[in-house]
Order: sequence, then structure tokens, then C-alpha cells
Amino acid sequence: MKTIGYAAQSPETPLAPYAFERRELRGNDVAIEIQYCGVCHSDLHTARNDWGGTVYPIVPGHEIVGRVTAVGPEVSRHAVGDTVAIGCLVDSCGHCDQCEHDHENYCRNGWVGTYNGRDKVTGDVTQGGYARDIVVREEFVLRMPEGLDVAKAAPLLCAGITTYSPLREWNVGEGTRVGVIGLGGLGHMAVKLAAAMGADVTVFSRSPGKEADALELGAARVLISSDETAMKAAASSFDFIIDTVPVKHDLNPYLPLLDVDGSLVLVGQIGPVDEPITTPLIFGRRRIAGSLIGGIAETQEMLDFCAEKNILPEVEMIRMDEINHAYERMERSDVHYRFVIDMSTLEGAAA
Amino acid sequence: MKTIGYAAQSPETPLAPYAFERRELRGNDVAIEIQYCGVCHSDLHTARNDWGGTVYPIVPGHEIVGRVTAVGPEVSRHAVGDTVAIGCLVDSCGHCDQCEHDHENYCRNGWVGTYNGRDKVTGDVTQGGYARDIVVREEFVLRMPEGLDVAKAAPLLCAGITTYSPLREWNVGEGTRVGVIGLGGLGHMAVKLAAAMGADVTVFSRSPGKEADALELGAARVLISSDETAMKAAASSFDFIIDTVPVKHDLNPYLPLLDVDGSLVLVGQIGPVDEPITTPLIFGRRRIAGSLIGGIAETQEMLDFCAEKNILPEVEMIRMDEINHAYERMERSDVHYRFVIDMSTLEGAAA
Repeated sequence: MKTIGYAAQSPETPLAPYAFERRELRGNDVAIEIQYCGVCHSDLHTARNDWGGTVYPIVPGHEIVGRVTAVGPEVSRHAVGDTVAIGCLVDSCGHCDQCEHDHENYCRNGWVGTYNGRDKVTGDVTQGGYARDIVVREEFVLRMPEGLDVAKAAPLLCAGITTYSPLREWNVGEGTRVGVIGLGGLGHMAVKLAAAMGADVTVFSRSPGKEADALELGAARVLISSDETAMKAAASSFDFIIDTVPVKHDLNPYLPLLDVDGSLVLVGQIGPVDEPITTPLIFGRRRIAGSLIGGIAETQEMLDFCAEKNILPEVEMIRMDEINHAYERMERSDVHYRFVIDMSTLEGAAA
Repeated sequence: MKTIGYAAQSPETPLAPYAFERRELRGNDVAIEIQYCGVCHSDLHTARNDWGGTVYPIVPGHEIVGRVTAVGPEVSRHAVGDTVAIGCLVDSCGHCDQCEHDHENYCRNGWVGTYNGRDKVTGDVTQGGYARDIVVREEFVLRMPEGLDVAKAAPLLCAGITTYSPLREWNVGEGTRVGVIGLGGLGHMAVKLAAAMGADVTVFSRSPGKEADALELGAARVLISSDETAMKAAASSFDFIIDTVPVKHDLNPYLPLLDVDGSLVLVGQIGPVDEPITTPLIFGRRRIAGSLIGGIAETQEMLDFCAEKNILPEVEMIRMDEINHAYERMERSDVHYRFVIDMSTLEGAAA
């Protein structure tokens, strides 16, 4: 199937219109016309080859909402006309212990990324959601629940599930004392989701000025991390801290804030963090962990939870031809809190 | 009560005979004549003020086995003549949530160390087990179970419980794939205890030559950490790794060896470790944690477990006047695997 999208042709070139082929539908495939696509930091990192391994041209985008336009003959979960969504994964082996336990995101044999992955059948590089259409195996297509605003929901597919999954894994619920480091795309979803689960949420901020925003998102308070007195007073007062900061940083100010047996979970920085001092780990059996996106069943659960609780990301809608400017603004953290591309603007942009 | 022991008078002076007073028995106190005292790295660190905060003169020693010589009028748990033991803690607040859940080792109000602590009643500095006698609140005195060789058991009180507690907390049992980093006083106990719990134990070693020792202790194999091929082949093959290395080191070679959701638990190094790369944490939801000694009930459970399973440390018995030489050998890691002082040699040494 011929389609169009926006691709980077090299690490140095801006994204630009790109005509390419989607695969013909296999028996268990669903074809989707994309309505909205969120803009994730990973898109920018991949377009610029920041992590290495990008194969060009590359069409980014893994926060996808759209409508089913065709289904393969074996498809039973979705029908033409359904509103559906795609996140960061479009395939996995399906038979390892992780896949069998709905943890496709930790598949032993390697899950297939929505873009810059390798299709398990053809070996072709997968292309993401900055495009008119996408074709995905039905098991990796999510149902958009009734009542969730499709224009805003796209960031749930990465920013939402990436924070929802560790909140669930670490049993955040009524009264859990949750801290959130970094108030960006992921962090603002962590605040909303944890608050909706009944948690008492604190946002850590390096400087004053984010308080009104944080409270509006659902936080109970903001703790200024440069305020040593306040930080000392908060020692041992958190059950769970989610760290969404996507660059190298220092965990040491936060570790003593965890209570005995508390966990700090990293979802942002993939790479080194500063040397941790083990003292608070040892003297309070505290823990540092990581977490990656979520499984497909859990992503569906998250969408249903958001529909039930009326949780939506804060989004700024952009046209497709604004993407390069949006990347520049993301680099300056000038976004509250996630860009979403209105894909109906693609045809004009790509004309 | 007048007693004698061996004390450091300053960071620079060797340990030497020292006459001092033990407190008169309070209602809930037990007086103990010490028969054996293990030699822990913490003793050396404290004697030399490596961690700061040492108050001189200081009598080290917190792996204590002895016989009850007197009891206060309210004591109900122990009787004159009983063989008993003292570990790293001699008091805690007793009423915080941690104490109420038998986690005195994480007491909110600060537990009292067996030496260089502060007595909760008088504020006097506590003095440890390199001494003829000790007086301890009965709740912190452990029963030595029948059948445990008292001449060898002393190191269980620190090296034993420090490794037993995390093995239990992280549910090590039949078939658990356990790795042990560092084959010293703590590490050799980790091997013995994990093997006795039914685990499949691997010892990591920087260089060949420890294989025969490790297998004899109960390990199934040794993995040479400098062998990159072997380390790669072992990726994702451990449920639990206990890291007993007591100096700054690099966790990064070990993190990818953990399976999804696996934990690496630090019990040795109190201070910084090298910058960890978060990639294996995030991509496998792996965890890093710390753990500190164990609670009193758990220490009793450990002693009973060791008696039942016939687990004893490998010890080298020394005379009291050999302690300074023993410290020198500990610094060269020239000990298999723990020194124990035969305290019957004290009177001659202190004469």
C-alpha cells in the first residue's frame, strides 16, 4: 500500500515529506488511517541517531491513534471503522515466558519497535506514525475506549503506559506517598495517573514556579530540590519515586527521601547516572530500579483506566509541517506537556 | 562491673589491653562472659576511624558468643549458664513501626551499635566484644541453639545475618539462581546459606584459582568476571546477586546478568559505587538494592537454621594478642574466611 509520511533522511536533515510503501495486509494485520500522533523525545533521538542504529530514511512516531480501514482475513479483534491505537511495540515473539505473561515489552527474543525495528517476517525496517497509514498485527492494536478524547489521547501510548506500568508494578494506590522527578511529557502523566490511583503526589522541582501547574495536574505539593532544609525534612517520607529525567543526573538527593523498602524507578535516562552513594540503600533497604513502557494487555488496561477516570495528557496540537520547530522547542523543554500532530494536516504538508 | 578488653586509643595506635567498666545490671540486663569474638572489617574501620565518628578508646567486636553469668531481676528469656550470642545491635527504640515489625536494624530512632553506639539510658559509648564480659538488654541477647559449634559460630552474628537477611527478603529458595560477588567473610557465608536454601549458586571471581574453594563451600560453579565471553553467555541468568565487595567498584558488568525483575543487593560497600548504566535496569526492570544486617528475630531464625543445616563459617582461631597482625592480614584479604578470637587468651594477653 502506498502511503506518505514525514521522514528524516539523515541525522542532520530536518524531517520532510516522504512517500513509501506499507506492507500488504497479512492474515492477522490491521490497516489504520492515522488521525493523531504524539511527539516523543525518542522520536527526536532516533531521527538524529543519538542512540546509534538508526536506519534512514526513518519515519518516527509511536503514540498513534487512528481508524481501522481494512483487516486481514484472520483478524477477530478489530473491525473496519473502529478507533484504535498503536504504541511503542508492533510485534514480539509471542512464545517466550515474558510474552506468555503479557510482558511483550521484555520479550526474550526482542520486541519490534513501531519505528526503526525489524519486521519479523520480512526484516524490513518498521516506520512509525508520522504517516497517513500504518499496518500492524492485530494483537498489537489497542482498542480506544469510548469517551476518551481521541485528539488528546495519543501520548498515553508511550508517556502514559511508561509511567502507568511502574505505578502498578510497585502497587501504588490509596495513600501511597509518590514523588515525581521531572515534569515533562512522562512526569505530568505520572502525576495524573498516580493521583487518580489515590496516591499522595509530590513533584520535585529544581526551582520554584512550577507549583501552580503541578497542583493543577493533581500533585498535593511541590518540593524544591535545591532547598536543603525542605529536602532533609522530607527524609524517609516516600514509598515510591518515579524519575522521568531523560539525561544524566544525580540520584543521591532523592534516595534518602525514600522510606525503608522504598523504590526509585527510572523511566527516563537510558545511559549513565552519577555515582550513587549506597548508604541510604543499605541503611534503609531502599531500591533503585528501571521500567520500560508496558505490555499490551497493561496498555489496554491503562487506556480503559484513563477513560474511566477521565485522564488525558495536556497536549499542544501542531500541524505536520511544524514538526521540526516542535523538535527545537522540545529541546528547550518548551512544551506543556506533549505535542500531538493532527495528521489531517499531512496531505497539505506533503503536497 | 570491672572488666578488661582490647581497645584502640586513637586511629594510629594498635589495639592494646584496656581495663574498663561495664554497667551494673539493669532489671532487663544479661551479663555474659565472652568465649569467642569474630573479627569483622567494621571493627578495623571503626578502630581506625575510617568512617569518622569513632570515640576513643574503642573496644571493637560484634560477633560475640559467651555464657550468661548474671541476669537482672526482670529477665525471663535467659538464665545463668546459658550459651548466648550478641550481634551488631544491643538496643533500639522498641516502639516505632520498624521495631514493632522486628526490623530493629531499620529502627526509626536509631538502633544502638554493639560498639561505638550510645547507650539509650546513660549516653555512654558502647564497647564491643574484644573483652572478658559484656552486659546487654535481654531482648538483644540471642539463644545459641544446641549443636552449633560455639568455637566457630561467632561470625554468624554479623557475616551470617548480613547475608541471610537479604536472601530471605528476596525469597531465595529451591532452584533460585544466586550469584555471589566477593568471596570473603560475608561472601563465603552467602554461598553456604544460599546453597542450604536450595539455590543454584555461582561465585563471581576476577581471576581463576578460587574454584575449588567455592565448590567446597557449596557453589555450583565459578564465573570469571574478566572472561567476557562467559559473562555474555550468562546474560539474564540470575534471579538474585548479592554483592559483598566492601570497596568502590563497578556494578555494570553484573547488572545484565540479572534476569528480568532480578535484583542485585549490596551488603558490602557503604559509600559510592561507579556510575551505573541504567540500560539493563530499564530494559529488564532490574533492580539494585541495599540491605543492613538483620532484625533480632531474624538473627535467631538464622542461628536456628544454621544449627538445623549444620552451617558454620570457615574460621581461623587467633589469640587476643594476635589481633593487630590479624588486621594486617585482613587488609591483604589473607583470611579464609573469618578470624575468631579465642577470648580465653585475653587474661594472659592483658596481664
